[in-house]
Amino acid sequence: MVADESWFTEKGEGYGISLRIREKIHDEQTPFQHIEIYETETFGRLMTLDGLVMLTSRDNFIYHEMMTHPVLFTHTNPKNVIIVGGGDCGTLKEVLKHKQVEKALQVELDERVTRVSEKYFPDLCDKNNDPRAAFLFQDAIQWMGEATPNTADVIILDTTDPVGQAARLFSVEFYGDCLRVLRDGGLLVAQSESPLFNVDIIQHIHKAMKEAGADDTQTIHFPQCTYPSGWWSATMARKGQKLKGFRETAARKKTFPTRYYNADIHYACQSLPSYVIEALEKGD
Amino acid sequence: MVADESWFTEKGEGYGISLRIREKIHDEQTPFQHIEIYETETFGRLMTLDGLVMLTSRDNFIYHEMMTHPVLFTHTNPKNVIIVGGGDCGTLKEVLKHKQVEKALQVELDERVTRVSEKYFPDLCDKNNDPRAAFLFQDAIQWMGEATPNTADVIILDTTDPVGQAARLFSVEFYGDCLRVLRDGGLLVAQSESPLFNVDIIQHIHKAMKEAGADDTQTIHFPQCTYPSGWWSATMARKGQKLKGFRETAARKKTFPTRYYNADIHYACQSLPSYVIEALEKGD
Repeated sequence: MVADESWFTEKGEGYGISLRIREKIHDEQTPFQHIEIYETETFGRLMTLDGLVMLTSRDNFIYHEMMTHPVLFTHTNPKNVIIVGGGDCGTLKEVLKHKQVEKALQVELDERVTRVSEKYFPDLCDKNNDPRAAFLFQDAIQWMGEATPNTADVIILDTTDPVGQAARLFSVEFYGDCLRVLRDGGLLVAQSESPLFNVDIIQHIHKAMKEAGADDTQTIHFPQCTYPSGWWSATMARKGQKLKGFRETAARKKTFPTRYYNADIHYACQSLPSYVIEALEKGD
Repeated sequence: MVADESWFTEKGEGYGISLRIREKIHDEQTPFQHIEIYETETFGRLMTLDGLVMLTSRDNFIYHEMMTHPVLFTHTNPKNVIIVGGGDCGTLKEVLKHKQVEKALQVELDERVTRVSEKYFPDLCDKNNDPRAAFLFQDAIQWMGEATPNTADVIILDTTDPVGQAARLFSVEFYGDCLRVLRDGGLLVAQSESPLFNVDIIQHIHKAMKEAGADDTQTIHFPQCTYPSGWWSATMARKGQKLKGFRETAARKKTFPTRYYNADIHYACQSLPSYVIEALEKGD
């Protein structure tokens, strides 16, 4: 790496991704974390939380579309959606593209992430005033533990990495609470890290979701340039039913625009590399 | 980025990938390029040519499998395969896994790349003594221009980026020579850069292949952690026939191991993101 303060670098184990920055335009320590916003040279704006890349203007569309549309087109009729985390509102915006969604509740710990996003990522937040959108800024673990059972159709866990406080969002206990809140046939999806670096985490999530009572689990994958390894995954679980098929006709005839997702991509994202299949078979 | 000589960094436009290195174990200026080999902390060995990542021990399997098996399982009976570039022999090793291949000729400009790979990446070169393997160390453009027409089934362009000398390997003229050397129904595949950063190059390749006389073209994509954006593509062209379907039963029953490729991945890698489809429709 080069001695140059004009680069932001996220370093992992022996590996790093750097983005050249023009300037830092926001720097704030909240009660929960350190939020920084940069203008980058070629990736638009960059938000980091505690020094880790959350999103850039250029490539967040892949993550947000893939956290949303595969699971919403798998559910037969997703009316009530809960987003855990997702403070930048990019997932919320994608959820609201589905007309049958009647309520999308975002339960984010740190209100400042959403307020900062409204200022610096206005395109991600331009549906925040949709009457179907609701916001709670509180601990999702406590909230989910007290939420009314059998009320949600889809729960999207748009969280940070499973370290520190966020580790509890990847636990059997929390998945159990989510499954309790889901209606029968309901779907849970969690961002599940890099298929190259974190197969152990993906294994853990499958195991924990099943231990929590899920009838079936499935991992999907997609490119995500500014996350470690440039390749990311999400893992779905279903309550009371198997995960098989999706509303393909609806996906093909969808009336809203997407840049990454389409019905063929929906099929494709479910096809796992041989080494991942083997790891999941062993890990189960 | 950090002032630290223990990291190797490849910088692109406002973007960089870094690998932490333990030591540089080879450094050589050949008549054609600068070859360096490093021991990295978490990616095994790294080879760079003129400062650009060619491969690492950890993730090269994805690139080499995806440059080989989709095109070889698309061809009905690939007997005679030509690899242009590919000096590290990783593509050659994958090609030789196919039993019906009778001859695999690697035409690489720089013999030193192959000799250095034999020393530092022995697992990629452990089939170099296969009696079906042949090596020519010379300019592939001149060679292809003089090669016997209608003799090859598959030509794999495992080249560096389309800059400098290598730019001629992405030209209408060179694709025309390749198509001339292919038998009817033969397939050409070129590594075609990042779907995130280089859609313009992918558009150019489709256009150039068609201008050169290809009956059909198709792009496939796959993750590749240590190449820019962590996401890569290859673009296929066919002589005298459309690109439709592949030998699915043979792919499902293949008798050799792969770590990334399988028949479901074959379907999946052909499904393009919506923005890439739109770009290619506009660009054609």
